[in-house]
Amino acid sequence: MNPISAPAAGLRDAARRRFLKRGVALGAALAAGVTGSAAGQSAPTPAPEDPSRVLGNPMKPYGDRSRFDTAVKQKAPTEMPDEWGGNFTPLDVTLGIITPSALHFEVCAGGVPDIDPKKHRLLIDGMVDRPVILTVDEIKRLPSRSQVYFLECEGNSRSEWRPSQAAPTVQLTHGLTSCGEWTGVTLSLLLREAGVQKNASWIVAEGADAQGAERSIPLAKAMDDVLVAYGQNGEAPRPGNGFPLRLVVPGWAGSANVKWLRRITVVDRSYMTRVESPTRTSLMPDGTARQFMFVMNAKSVITSPSGGHRLGGPGFYEIRGLAWSGRGSIRRVEVSLDGGKTWKDAKLQTPVLRLAHTRFRFDWRWDGREALLQSRCTDDTGYVQPTLAELVKVRGLNSIYNNNAIQGWKVAADGSVQNANS
Amino acid sequence: MNPISAPAAGLRDAARRRFLKRGVALGAALAAGVTGSAAGQSAPTPAPEDPSRVLGNPMKPYGDRSRFDTAVKQKAPTEMPDEWGGNFTPLDVTLGIITPSALHFEVCAGGVPDIDPKKHRLLIDGMVDRPVILTVDEIKRLPSRSQVYFLECEGNSRSEWRPSQAAPTVQLTHGLTSCGEWTGVTLSLLLREAGVQKNASWIVAEGADAQGAERSIPLAKAMDDVLVAYGQNGEAPRPGNGFPLRLVVPGWAGSANVKWLRRITVVDRSYMTRVESPTRTSLMPDGTARQFMFVMNAKSVITSPSGGHRLGGPGFYEIRGLAWSGRGSIRRVEVSLDGGKTWKDAKLQTPVLRLAHTRFRFDWRWDGREALLQSRCTDDTGYVQPTLAELVKVRGLNSIYNNNAIQGWKVAADGSVQNANS
Repeated sequence: MNPISAPAAGLRDAARRRFLKRGVALGAALAAGVTGSAAGQSAPTPAPEDPSRVLGNPMKPYGDRSRFDTAVKQKAPTEMPDEWGGNFTPLDVTLGIITPSALHFEVCAGGVPDIDPKKHRLLIDGMVDRPVILTVDEIKRLPSRSQVYFLECEGNSRSEWRPSQAAPTVQLTHGLTSCGEWTGVTLSLLLREAGVQKNASWIVAEGADAQGAERSIPLAKAMDDVLVAYGQNGEAPRPGNGFPLRLVVPGWAGSANVKWLRRITVVDRSYMTRVESPTRTSLMPDGTARQFMFVMNAKSVITSPSGGHRLGGPGFYEIRGLAWSGRGSIRRVEVSLDGGKTWKDAKLQTPVLRLAHTRFRFDWRWDGREALLQSRCTDDTGYVQPTLAELVKVRGLNSIYNNNAIQGWKVAADGSVQNANS
Repeated sequence: MNPISAPAAGLRDAARRRFLKRGVALGAALAAGVTGSAAGQSAPTPAPEDPSRVLGNPMKPYGDRSRFDTAVKQKAPTEMPDEWGGNFTPLDVTLGIITPSALHFEVCAGGVPDIDPKKHRLLIDGMVDRPVILTVDEIKRLPSRSQVYFLECEGNSRSEWRPSQAAPTVQLTHGLTSCGEWTGVTLSLLLREAGVQKNASWIVAEGADAQGAERSIPLAKAMDDVLVAYGQNGEAPRPGNGFPLRLVVPGWAGSANVKWLRRITVVDRSYMTRVESPTRTSLMPDGTARQFMFVMNAKSVITSPSGGHRLGGPGFYEIRGLAWSGRGSIRRVEVSLDGGKTWKDAKLQTPVLRLAHTRFRFDWRWDGREALLQSRCTDDTGYVQPTLAELVKVRGLNSIYNNNAIQGWKVAADGSVQNANS
């Protein structure tokens, strides 16, 4: 073996052009031209030309990411409706199914509270035989469970109900969903030990932040798979995701997954709290309002290529995306390249996990002509993701929440990609 | 529902004492007294007494962890052998199976290189028909795969061969293993497209750091499941874990998972590179040296309670730990409370993934007497984790690498926990 040499020089371009000619000829690289990622940053100091000739930096006790890795969450621009303060995950650059905790979406209407875990307590009261106050350390000592779950704000894709509001990128159309491995104690254990009384049928969960978030949740779900979580991807949840305790209500609307959890009150009816009456409801065409739309229906989206990207020229592209269902697991994802006329099966990353994101992939050779890319998922109950037209037929145009429609991305002949809803 | 109130006051202590009396009576909390985590830190500003009465902080584009969460990686103290510069994961506080990227162990003998991904290249040369140089963006365009894999430095637990060197905590005895979801392109795709020539039988992988790391890997493995990875837990790998490209060689010795990958040379024999001849070998009792011990054998360890912890008193504790095997998946983990006389099955967190950490849990009611806690795993080949005595019988006492022996933790009557090897 020769001495180490930087491989930057030497081979002719022809070699690269020949490369992968059979299956996946490389065009110019995908432009990573997504909004937000480099905003406001000054040019970094150049890295060494040949890093192997320079002693590296010291290892860190808690490793930062590379200074060249600049993906960030993004708030909705002011022209988009966003009274709840959503901070959107950059789904077009995240990989696999685990969302990095630092990029996990967050909605923090009262800001991100600064909580000392040594002072924080969880009170369980109401219709229980033995009300109790627990410290975080006491909760951590109990039998634990870890599971990979998606979370999705029910306001995700709210911009896509009407063409006039359609968002430009997948980060803003779908970035209020993320997925991670959550660890905690089952709420059912806590409730069983507290002794739920006979006529109880709901709980109300309260967070310790300034928005006064209280959410009613049916007792049957609380006794099923809900976690009082103190872990997200192996460590404590980030402050924006509920440090030190959050409720994880698998498959259910994000807002029910109460963050900074400090109180569970067992009750005998839903409480119509402030966040459940004027908001979190959907006005139907007949004038009635749908309430407590807890379960997130099956949904999928192509994350790359997606709005704001530009394809560098005809050639191979891997279409990548995510699918999820609050009713179970994803059975199938299909991709259409022609606006829904024909569909082909995408490959699903295994293992496919219940109530978690499922990564799908589809090999595509772009011929340089206009295309309309869409994905459509089916969950293991047989439910098929609807078109927007099908959804509007039932729900009308006054809805805000629970838009799980098929999303399209228009690829123009110049390679630019735009939201098909706009 | 009454106005929100801080739950800190109100209930009598008796309520807490009554709580969980059936199954899991709470004693005093586990002392989190593990070395290193709070060293050198000044007292933080107090958090608000009632966070719900104060507007929270702004959401961040890339979320930091809580200022109260202080778990860190740790280097070996000078009295422990550590010429390779290992930075150990705090396994006693990590949760589930995903290791946070910021806490993923790292061994960086040449320091952590500062690499500009726009300038970085991967060269594939040697016995191939079409040598090629690829940019990182070109690699990211190819068909991708994501999988959860453990990594383990073959020097992990090197301190445990001899009682005189035994380390005090699970972070230092076993913290050179971690687990994450890795995303990349399969090396087999790159090699097939480059056209591997007939007599080729090995590859040599080279990193771009200052240590001059070159590792020989059999071609059969390279064509099987090896990834050229550009993703770790949904984003780029941390600099200490190979940013922007690393080889992931599932189930094989950490050092073969070459970081900062810049060259793959296809060859017809192992190359006995600098890191493969004086080191990375094990001297056997008969004077021969074992080389290329690639596959990491099945191994498990109890991560809590573990060395340096102190139990607050008799009562319920959940024994938690990790198991993994480089040959497949974990079939069974048993726990012994009496130093190996009797064993009982632990619960395995599902899904159990191939070549990944498996989290196990075991309900334990400590009676306040001395105990010796051990775990023993069996993988799906039927291989059973050996005792240290069984291992030494075969390998002698001159070994450094590949110590996968059963680890014991001694619990004293005062609740203190110590390494049983010391």
